[in-house]
Amino acid sequence: MSEKRTEISDIGEFGLIDHLSKKITLKHASSIKGIGDDAAVINSGDHVKVVTTDLLLEGVHFDLTYAPLTHVGFKAVAVNISDIAAMNAIPKQITVSIALSNRFSLEAVDALYQGINAAAEHYNVDVVGGDTTASRSGLVISVTAIGEAKNEQIVYRSGAKEKDIICVTGDLGAALVGLQILEREKQVFLANPEMKPELDKYQIVTARQLRPEARMDIIHELLELDLIPTSMMDISDGLASELFHICKASRVGVTIYEDKLPIDKQTFDTAVELGMDPITCVLNGGEDYELLFTIDQKDYHKLEKHPDIHFIGHTTKPEEGKYLVTKSGTAMELKAQGWKHF
Amino acid sequence: MSEKRTEISDIGEFGLIDHLSKKITLKHASSIKGIGDDAAVINSGDHVKVVTTDLLLEGVHFDLTYAPLTHVGFKAVAVNISDIAAMNAIPKQITVSIALSNRFSLEAVDALYQGINAAAEHYNVDVVGGDTTASRSGLVISVTAIGEAKNEQIVYRSGAKEKDIICVTGDLGAALVGLQILEREKQVFLANPEMKPELDKYQIVTARQLRPEARMDIIHELLELDLIPTSMMDISDGLASELFHICKASRVGVTIYEDKLPIDKQTFDTAVELGMDPITCVLNGGEDYELLFTIDQKDYHKLEKHPDIHFIGHTTKPEEGKYLVTKSGTAMELKAQGWKHF
Repeated sequence: MSEKRTEISDIGEFGLIDHLSKKITLKHASSIKGIGDDAAVINSGDHVKVVTTDLLLEGVHFDLTYAPLTHVGFKAVAVNISDIAAMNAIPKQITVSIALSNRFSLEAVDALYQGINAAAEHYNVDVVGGDTTASRSGLVISVTAIGEAKNEQIVYRSGAKEKDIICVTGDLGAALVGLQILEREKQVFLANPEMKPELDKYQIVTARQLRPEARMDIIHELLELDLIPTSMMDISDGLASELFHICKASRVGVTIYEDKLPIDKQTFDTAVELGMDPITCVLNGGEDYELLFTIDQKDYHKLEKHPDIHFIGHTTKPEEGKYLVTKSGTAMELKAQGWKHF
Repeated sequence: MSEKRTEISDIGEFGLIDHLSKKITLKHASSIKGIGDDAAVINSGDHVKVVTTDLLLEGVHFDLTYAPLTHVGFKAVAVNISDIAAMNAIPKQITVSIALSNRFSLEAVDALYQGINAAAEHYNVDVVGGDTTASRSGLVISVTAIGEAKNEQIVYRSGAKEKDIICVTGDLGAALVGLQILEREKQVFLANPEMKPELDKYQIVTARQLRPEARMDIIHELLELDLIPTSMMDISDGLASELFHICKASRVGVTIYEDKLPIDKQTFDTAVELGMDPITCVLNGGEDYELLFTIDQKDYHKLEKHPDIHFIGHTTKPEEGKYLVTKSGTAMELKAQGWKHF
């Protein structure tokens, strides 16, 4: 007699989150928003706290054969700050927990913390707590970030309305292309340890993979412009996947335009070199940590001339679906592939 | 030429925390208390939030050959609630992150979450967020708990004064003795899988190890009695180790009395059966998650008749040192051994 066994890979990460979330109800009035956005929102007197957490494992989220520990520390903080940014909040505190196998010396931990502390300084957050423990296998890092905002400043995934303008910061696809380059050079190195990796011409894409930036600069600019997006997310799983989240939460459709999608020249050239479709990298590449947000048309003039914000399309009625209009004018249905760890 | 390599095991967990904490400074006025207590304290308008986090790894913190996943889930929450209790605060929200290898089915995750949700219900906290990801090796659980208190209710490790009374809740040593029994039965099982483990007579000690209780009941009673301890910690690393923390933070000495130390009969008998010294189990056994706190003598009458609070000694001038007075009247210097994962 065998018990029923359902593989996690059959339902995927989002399926698992949906499955687990169904059993969870919020009881405290102070729990304003629970699972289902970039961060939780907790009432805090005259303001709200936003809380987010990420768990990063060696061999799954980073590979120490090419990722320097200092960058791993910086990135572990940055990805959490990016979730705070995605709520339109200002990060204030973080906790950092690490589990270490005896492969790691004190000097290695210092390198890791050099990155953690550099990120804390860069994003102006205090490291207020954490946990250190042993691990049987490799490095595990868990960061929780806490931010603050006025209640009315918080931006959810669910606020987009029909005919809003869809905005994206920076450029996309670089982190995925960077990962492919790092993996390629790793294989070259493993085949012949005498070979020196050639990374100079791939600096932008590898840096995006190894040491991404959370776009707090944009959040501060939006605050100064007195512009509150109608919805917002950070792009950690890929543009298409994030657009699906916004469509679902906001009950809208989207039309985006291939010729508006921002891609860096190095990302484009490297994708072509690797035999990858650059547009697929832009749509489905994860870990860029740029911001995806929607604005009311009346706010367009405030951002119109911004050098680093791109207007890639607009929201539609939900029944109009989710489409990418190619350069040749063909409307293709968007598919969310996302970034799968399982 | 070799670079300097310092082993983490040479400096230990507390040495590592001290080393890393030195480089951390707090910049935000809202960061009231950072690393160095059971939880961080963050200003939150008319009250404070307390935040604590724990990282639990399979093979280090729990062994799934004898720990049911439901208990592992419950314990992962309870140990964090215990840290909130230790600040004299009321827990409100938790985030739960898990990393899973493909050994774990959806049914296994459901069993884990059954325990997590049972603990959330039991301690009246909302699960507001988290992260789910893949793992290459076993289960990793990271829980962050957020609690609330009025600023003046927060109790630190640093508030004990000379001639305060040292109190301990419940009884001690059970979790360590329970762990030894579980490990013994595991070895028996590994040697002969036909053997059924005999755990009936060890129910109290094994339950303490597998499914400990955070003492929120005591925190609510203290609030009702309008009694604010002068210092408090939870006993996760062992009584002696925690007393050292209070002595260091509060700049006091301590004298405790062997005949006042609370030990359950089953813990005592099982320790003897295992050839362990029961008093050593009480002093150095970790994971009991009882509360250790000090009170001003004027508050003694409020707790005098409490059936589950034990008065084990008193604080002294720091230069008087840290002593255990044995049943025969001999004063022995206390040694902090603590609970070492490294």
